[in-house]
Amino acid sequence: MDHAVVMAGGSGTRCWPESRARRSKQFLNLTGGGPMIRETLLRLFPVVPPERVWVVAGLKDAVHLSHRDLGIPKRNILLEPEGKNTAPAIAYAAASIARDDPGAVVLATPADHAIGNVRAFQTVLRKGLRLARETGRFVTLGVPPTHPSTGYGYIERGKTFHGKMRGAFEVARFAEKPDLPTAKRFLRSDRFAWNSGLFLFSVGTFADRLAKFLPEVDREICRAFRGDRAGFRNRLARAYRRMPSISVDYGILEKETGILVLPANVGWSDLGAWRSLHEFLARAGENVAFGDVILADCRNVLVRTDSGVAAVLGMEDVVVVRSGDAVLVCPHSRSEEVKSVLEEVRRRFPALA
Amino acid sequence: MDHAVVMAGGSGTRCWPESRARRSKQFLNLTGGGPMIRETLLRLFPVVPPERVWVVAGLKDAVHLSHRDLGIPKRNILLEPEGKNTAPAIAYAAASIARDDPGAVVLATPADHAIGNVRAFQTVLRKGLRLARETGRFVTLGVPPTHPSTGYGYIERGKTFHGKMRGAFEVARFAEKPDLPTAKRFLRSDRFAWNSGLFLFSVGTFADRLAKFLPEVDREICRAFRGDRAGFRNRLARAYRRMPSISVDYGILEKETGILVLPANVGWSDLGAWRSLHEFLARAGENVAFGDVILADCRNVLVRTDSGVAAVLGMEDVVVVRSGDAVLVCPHSRSEEVKSVLEEVRRRFPALA
Repeated sequence: MDHAVVMAGGSGTRCWPESRARRSKQFLNLTGGGPMIRETLLRLFPVVPPERVWVVAGLKDAVHLSHRDLGIPKRNILLEPEGKNTAPAIAYAAASIARDDPGAVVLATPADHAIGNVRAFQTVLRKGLRLARETGRFVTLGVPPTHPSTGYGYIERGKTFHGKMRGAFEVARFAEKPDLPTAKRFLRSDRFAWNSGLFLFSVGTFADRLAKFLPEVDREICRAFRGDRAGFRNRLARAYRRMPSISVDYGILEKETGILVLPANVGWSDLGAWRSLHEFLARAGENVAFGDVILADCRNVLVRTDSGVAAVLGMEDVVVVRSGDAVLVCPHSRSEEVKSVLEEVRRRFPALA
Repeated sequence: MDHAVVMAGGSGTRCWPESRARRSKQFLNLTGGGPMIRETLLRLFPVVPPERVWVVAGLKDAVHLSHRDLGIPKRNILLEPEGKNTAPAIAYAAASIARDDPGAVVLATPADHAIGNVRAFQTVLRKGLRLARETGRFVTLGVPPTHPSTGYGYIERGKTFHGKMRGAFEVARFAEKPDLPTAKRFLRSDRFAWNSGLFLFSVGTFADRLAKFLPEVDREICRAFRGDRAGFRNRLARAYRRMPSISVDYGILEKETGILVLPANVGWSDLGAWRSLHEFLARAGENVAFGDVILADCRNVLVRTDSGVAAVLGMEDVVVVRSGDAVLVCPHSRSEEVKSVLEEVRRRFPALA
């Protein structure tokens, strides 16, 4: 059957000061539609019913994961003892799913991305699930780029896939975040798409490739799942202590051959930095304000405040965020660098990091 | 004898959000040296002893005016029932002084200006007091302009004053805040100086000109001062209700002839807006930070926060102020317009105005 795994273990450091060590990005209401993880789940339910939707998250976020709020069974919430990037997370989820449903096909998605065209997105997901089931291959979603982003990885497509289903392509290669000239070249070519970070697979294929490419992860997960239920959490903690921290992309997908890519023109954004939130919510030049905000003669600004008032006068292309006791001001063009500001906050004002 | 009157009735709206309806600019610590009124008084004491220094302020600010803090006798604090601009304020102070000392010479100064070269300032004040005493004329201080400011009024000097004292000039005229081309013309000419708002006079001359140019103010103040001490506050309140709201500059100085101006190259600033504070504290291009501030790759920014942390990344020529529940961001070039932002704050968030 079809399952979905929502990866909710990240922290989203570039959304500081709204994201904090104990308030990860996926639990923030960034777009105004509610916590991002809730948005993500509500988008999935028409494709995969709640009882087959799983969330992998860190123990630190357990408090945010009340199953009542999320609308999925409590047993589908998989808490990782520590964060070890996506390969262990997906391995843990895939093993949990395969235990009950060895023929499962899984759609794995980040918890903190935004989708502009939800209907088109759901259509692509259904297509992807069918494609993964029919071919036994990994299927990725490639988003047609709208600008030469240097913040995303890219997927280069190869030849058309000739199967029962139309519209899929072989993946020629995955390209890491490019520099600007390369990103511009990618944009001019029509063979490159943004890597959405969303992918699909059958649990059989996944188990096979995990054993092949990441045997140290495979071995630890298998050990944790062998034995009585009572000892599971201890065995899992031991497995996580021993596993390397590694992503699915780097550990499996980039080594695998025969991966497919489905074009997904669905208004996707990873909301990876404040600028991308602004781009997702507004047309060029428009201002976006959350909270009690006064804008006087501003253009293309994003202003958020969670209390009091933020007054912004005569500014252009900047983000102003007040969250709790912290204020951030930076130009959109620098919003990726909030990460480095956060490092200084961690050193000097750890309580605000 | 020599007296000083510190005019502390203003509010300094362009320093919002630090200045508020109940926290006027003169009680803020803007430069890091303490409340501005305290700085002002400490500068005066070597010129005029504390027992002859007077403060005129609004009843609303009585709470800030504990005489212990200010170092002057309690009776020298003159509380106005309501604000009616500087002419009534000086009239009230001059009448209070003249009652005990009819031969007094008075130096009247705003409470919220900053002086870079305090020694030179004190020398000019002593000179000004002597000049006012010897001539019986109004004496103003003219600050040599350093840039074509459109935020200050100007004094055009006429011919050299030939008296016992050297270095004084006749005032040719007072010019209101100019537009930029005019300000540039003023700067090129060497006849124009910024009007510091500080002036000196003998109480006899002041009483005479008040009766001549502002008889309605003169009449009300005289009535308030006639009668028993017990009824004074009531009579004063009635006088203030009846007096027009008018400045000394507009009501008296601009109509008077024979005013003198002393050049005062003393590093004066009215700190009238955030930009002027930045210019007063820093050299061009330097950043200024108060409170827990993180600056990453910034130039010529002024950042203040009274709690939490303010992180500013990649910005230039802007002011960022967090004070209590309010945040302000604006370019230096627009800092005069904070006034209009404050109007919107008053309408929409009166508690924060």
